[in-house]
Amino acid sequence: MNLILLLKEDFLPFGDRVRITDRRLKHVLSVQGASRGDELAVGLLGGRIGTGTVVRLDGEALEMDVRLERDPPQKLPLTLVLSLPRPKVLRRILRTMSSLGVERIVLLNSFRVEKSYWQTPFLNEAQVKEQLVLGLEQAKDTVLPEVLLRPLFKPFVEDELPGLVRGTLPLVAHPSAAEPCPRGLTRPATLAIGPEGGFIPYEIDLLVSCGFLPVSLGERILTVEAAVPALISKLF
Amino acid sequence: MNLILLLKEDFLPFGDRVRITDRRLKHVLSVQGASRGDELAVGLLGGRIGTGTVVRLDGEALEMDVRLERDPPQKLPLTLVLSLPRPKVLRRILRTMSSLGVERIVLLNSFRVEKSYWQTPFLNEAQVKEQLVLGLEQAKDTVLPEVLLRPLFKPFVEDELPGLVRGTLPLVAHPSAAEPCPRGLTRPATLAIGPEGGFIPYEIDLLVSCGFLPVSLGERILTVEAAVPALISKLF
Repeated sequence: MNLILLLKEDFLPFGDRVRITDRRLKHVLSVQGASRGDELAVGLLGGRIGTGTVVRLDGEALEMDVRLERDPPQKLPLTLVLSLPRPKVLRRILRTMSSLGVERIVLLNSFRVEKSYWQTPFLNEAQVKEQLVLGLEQAKDTVLPEVLLRPLFKPFVEDELPGLVRGTLPLVAHPSAAEPCPRGLTRPATLAIGPEGGFIPYEIDLLVSCGFLPVSLGERILTVEAAVPALISKLF
Repeated sequence: MNLILLLKEDFLPFGDRVRITDRRLKHVLSVQGASRGDELAVGLLGGRIGTGTVVRLDGEALEMDVRLERDPPQKLPLTLVLSLPRPKVLRRILRTMSSLGVERIVLLNSFRVEKSYWQTPFLNEAQVKEQLVLGLEQAKDTVLPEVLLRPLFKPFVEDELPGLVRGTLPLVAHPSAAEPCPRGLTRPATLAIGPEGGFIPYEIDLLVSCGFLPVSLGERILTVEAAVPALISKLF
């Protein structure tokens, strides 16, 4: 936690003082080892970032006087369309995507996604948000990415995706593609990433007919957890 | 496992036939669901890659006739000097570094590395090699990276690092650096990455006096697991 993410409910009436009593208190007590007078990095969920001066810190509560003076880092102009990974990986990759500043995440079904993955409790709204918040706290950001769950590949790609890609460069990561992944984009992008084992040819064809360009990171096949930061870092 | 990594011991006398009876057999049976006549991607540890034609596959053994006709993917001309992460992360990041094709890995102590991390059994040679092999199998590579364990920061940086960085561009990832991480290098590099919380100023100074240039990926602080693929993908 490199930034304490504050909620509107944390603020005491009339002023800039917050009181925190949950896991964030535990973290500040045990990991950060802060004490009275210390200045901690804080940010308001969906709002600005700044510093909080500790005015009280004990087993009961952390109280800070907060100044929010700067905008959070810019989001990447990126919609990431990711084949739903297995549940354990899902949690980590949600944090990673949130840390990296992805603006919109679509979790999509595809042929090689196991049906059971859609049943995981980790897809509940609260659990998804929890991971995204951890990612924001890591990256010192305050703005949650939008997350869409799309358990049907074909209707999503045919009916909804054309609207989402409008005005963006649509790319699909495909290890056997001839085109290398472009570098240093200055325009918005939509990036589709398949499951372990990749999209099947039918899915690639459907994406291509929606305007997607297959691009490759090279001969090496990376796990989705390594591919996501590697691709994003290449693009922006 | 996108490639079955073969050992010299797998080969039957006089010929190109291998017999496999360990976890690789289990994987081919349960995950790949291969059968007789199938061609599987194979590679010889430290050698070439190619295909193996399944001539026997049952609960006892997998036998293949092997043709090794191509060189494995090139290594990245990169020495990665990584502050020792906590054990759980260590295992994953060894796989990731191996998949990405890092040529040499130095696991280094630094001020913010917990002493206890050096006691983990995951640092045993066999366990390190196991993770590196999993990374190679993921990336369809055969060549293990070299791994050096250096539990003393100062003597390593003063006495050994100058020799290692010779002929390379030495960079240290440092979130507050003014210089952005360079892109698309065409020469060898040495990249130092600090622990969660970063190198302390004394360590940065010592690295700078060894010729390292502090570079940043931007405002966002990434976990080491996201930073490693992001930095490498930016550099090469």
